[in-house]
Formats: sequence, C-alpha cells, structure tokens
Amino acid sequence: MRPEAGIQLIPIRQLPEVEPGDDLGQLITRAATEGGVKLASGDIVVVAQKIVSKAEGRLVDLATIIPSAFALEIAGRQRRDPRLVEVILSESARVVRTDDHVLITETKHGFVCANAGVDKSNVRDKDWVSLLPVAPDESARRLAARLSELLDVSVAVIITDTFGRAWREGLTNVAIGIAGLSPLKDFRGETDDHGKELSATVLAVADEIAAASGLLMRKTARIPVVVVRGYHYEVGDGGSALLIRPKERDLFR
Amino acid sequence: MRPEAGIQLIPIRQLPEVEPGDDLGQLITRAATEGGVKLASGDIVVVAQKIVSKAEGRLVDLATIIPSAFALEIAGRQRRDPRLVEVILSESARVVRTDDHVLITETKHGFVCANAGVDKSNVRDKDWVSLLPVAPDESARRLAARLSELLDVSVAVIITDTFGRAWREGLTNVAIGIAGLSPLKDFRGETDDHGKELSATVLAVADEIAAASGLLMRKTARIPVVVVRGYHYEVGDGGSALLIRPKERDLFR
Repeated sequence: MRPEAGIQLIPIRQLPEVEPGDDLGQLITRAATEGGVKLASGDIVVVAQKIVSKAEGRLVDLATIIPSAFALEIAGRQRRDPRLVEVILSESARVVRTDDHVLITETKHGFVCANAGVDKSNVRDKDWVSLLPVAPDESARRLAARLSELLDVSVAVIITDTFGRAWREGLTNVAIGIAGLSPLKDFRGETDDHGKELSATVLAVADEIAAASGLLMRKTARIPVVVVRGYHYEVGDGGSALLIRPKERDLFR
Repeated sequence: MRPEAGIQLIPIRQLPEVEPGDDLGQLITRAATEGGVKLASGDIVVVAQKIVSKAEGRLVDLATIIPSAFALEIAGRQRRDPRLVEVILSESARVVRTDDHVLITETKHGFVCANAGVDKSNVRDKDWVSLLPVAPDESARRLAARLSELLDVSVAVIITDTFGRAWREGLTNVAIGIAGLSPLKDFRGETDDHGKELSATVLAVADEIAAASGLLMRKTARIPVVVVRGYHYEVGDGGSALLIRPKERDLFR
C-alpha cells in the first residue's frame, strides 16, 4: 500500500551569497532547478528573513552610526556596542523589557522580539548588521509575483525569523511576512467527531509552517529557503499583521 | 536530478476511538501498517495529547465534581460550568490570569496554557472532559519503548497539545511530552559562514517538530498521529521540563 499523502519539507541549498539589489526570485528559481526541485502551484516557499533583508539592502554599517545618550546608557549597562543599541532603538516602536544582555522591543511592524530583529550573524562585512525588511508582507508579495512570472506557478510565500517567546525556552521560527496564504485557520463553530464544539479555535498555521521550515533552516547549514509541499492552505491576502495579538486580548503576557 | 533529502510529515489516520486501558503502541502500529507506513529507526512519532490521555484514563465525569466556592465565583463571572472550572483549578498550580471567558493557568507540570489543558472536545461522552497526562514525558517514554518492542525500531516520541502564546495570535502545537530526543538545539559558540558568532542561540526543536505536525493534526480530520521522517535529531533524555523557561530568565512575559 502507498503511504497516504503528507507534507514534504524540501530544502533549497544552492543559493549564492545574496547582495543588495539581487533578484531573489531568480536566485531561488536557479537554486531550486540546480537542486532538482521543480516548484509547483500550491507550494509554499519559505524564505529566511536574512536573505530578503540583504537583497533589499537592509544593511547598516555601524561605523556610520552616532549613538544617542539613551543608547549609550543602555549599552553601558549591557556592555554592548552603543552603535548597535542605537540601531536597535531606531528599529523599535518601544522597548518592552531589558536585562543585562538583551533588549526586547516592539518593532515598527508590531513584532515583539529580541533586539528588534537587528542581527550581526550571516552578514559578510565586519561591523555591518542586518535589519528586518521594512514591509515584510510586501516583500513576500513581490517574491510570490516574481516566482509566478518566472515559473508560471502560483505559490504562497512566507518570510521567517527566529523569535523567543514567553513561558517557553528556546527560539522558534515564526512568520513575519506572508503572501497568498491565510495566516490563521479558524475552527470556531466547527464540531468534533462527537458533535461537540472544538476548543482549539484559531490556529496560527503560518507560524506552524514557519516552525516546520525552521527544522531545516539551520543557521550554519546554508539553507535559507524551504519549500513546503502538500499542505492545503487557505488562499488569502491577510498578512502578518493578523498574527499580532492586540494587548487587550492577550492574557499570556 | 533527484531533489535533496528533506523532511516528510506522514499522517497516521486509521486509529479507532481510543479507550482507557488501550495499548496505544499497538493501535499506532496497526494504524501505521494499515496506512502503508513502515516505521523506521530515526522517525519521530508525534502524538496528540488527547489520545494519550484517553488511553491513560485521564477523563473526568463532571457529574462527579463538587465545585469549591472559588470555582463557583469564577464560573459565575465567566458564565461557565462551575464543575469544569473546579477541574481546571484542580489541575493547576496557580492561576496566571483570567478574563470573561478563559482561565490561563500554570499546570502542575509547569506549562502555561488555557484551562490547564482540560478539554471537552473529542471526548465521546457528554459532560466528560479530558485532562493532560500526569507525567507526559513518562507517557512518551512508555510509548517509545512499546513501539521499539513491537517493531524493533528506535524512534523518538513527542506528545503535543495546542497552546496560545503571548504577543501573537492563534494557537500552535507544542511539545508537552518528549522521549528519546533533545528538545533544544544549542548553537552557542558556533559561527556562521563568515566566522561571526551566531545570534540565534538555542532553538526549541521539539516545539518546531510539534508545530510541523500540527499542520496535519487538525482537530476535525482525525489525524492524532504524525510521523516526522528525515529530521536528524540529537538523541537525549531531557524531557519537556527543559522547554519551561524559568521566570527569572523570561523577558517576554
């Protein structure tokens, strides 16, 4: 008997070092082809934030940054580079919490994460850092459109980053940019096999897809793109803002 | 060219209604065989909490419950069944927060979730509810040992439930019981391709595996078991307690 259809997570490995101005759609198309992966309609192309930021030129040379008094104060306390702290603050709408090591902030997009997503790793030049894309949903939409143009397929795109979370240890990959896929699946009103109403009401499928891809998207393994195949997603144009929980409905903080 | 090896998420569908005392290892073995899935060493068998709780008889008839004054008070405010609230409180170490609808509590295991994991859905009898397993890591270990015995394979087991989280909308599947697999992957000290130290330090791989399985483990679709194949996990015997973040290191609350 053939096993029933499931979901495949397919790594795309052969991407070159991404440079500002690069056509990410073309790079992914080429790498997929070289890796023997033929993108098909219904696939979800999951892309690490870092290469999107690089292609969009969201890179900053710390040598050009003059830290504010506030940045100097935090940096002194945390023994970090005040220019890095300045960049983190400039990417943030507000500081949520700090300790001796890290700044948890709310980014201008509304994401709550460490250091506003500003990151030194996997950026080639010393003293340069990468920032999150300005509008990750638009980045995802542009990439989906480009892949559709190049390959004549209709795919969804998710841009991911690894965030920490409350209550639980460790980081997980989450969705910060979404195109062509409804990020939430709403089961409210549906019943189980015994006719009882379901208690798990709204599932964050975009984050589950991101987390699944995280299993392959290891930082040291040069896999910045994962194709998720076989998941029957709901097409939708609600972006990542739907995944941000309004304070008044957040009992988990 | 053949696509490079990735990860497969394989649904196991043919499980019967699970009853207290059932041999879950045998039920899963039979269902996998009927579904044409041959379990192999290195597979991760991901199992929904609900069927583990049923097999372990972690079911309560609300008709037998006498609510306390505290439960009556909360139930009055939330317009819920005071007997249900009583069961939730008895499964909790402390109440984290309440609103007009839900109780967020810390369970006796240390998990923070809605209603202490007490759930009415997918329990056959009216007025019965299911509780989380008493010791989910032990449940996972027993199941892994039983599958090893029946099939002569060495697999990891993860027991999952769907939890809400701070800051982000929607529930995701997380790991509440773990056997044979290290729940965290530590990248500290490793460097990226440019020799810079990695910033994503510790990844919650068990939760990423749980989330991946959540894509198939839909409440209405009768898929309580998913096999994750092709993920090269670190063998370890640290259980789900490693995923609980101590308060003093939790900046996300």
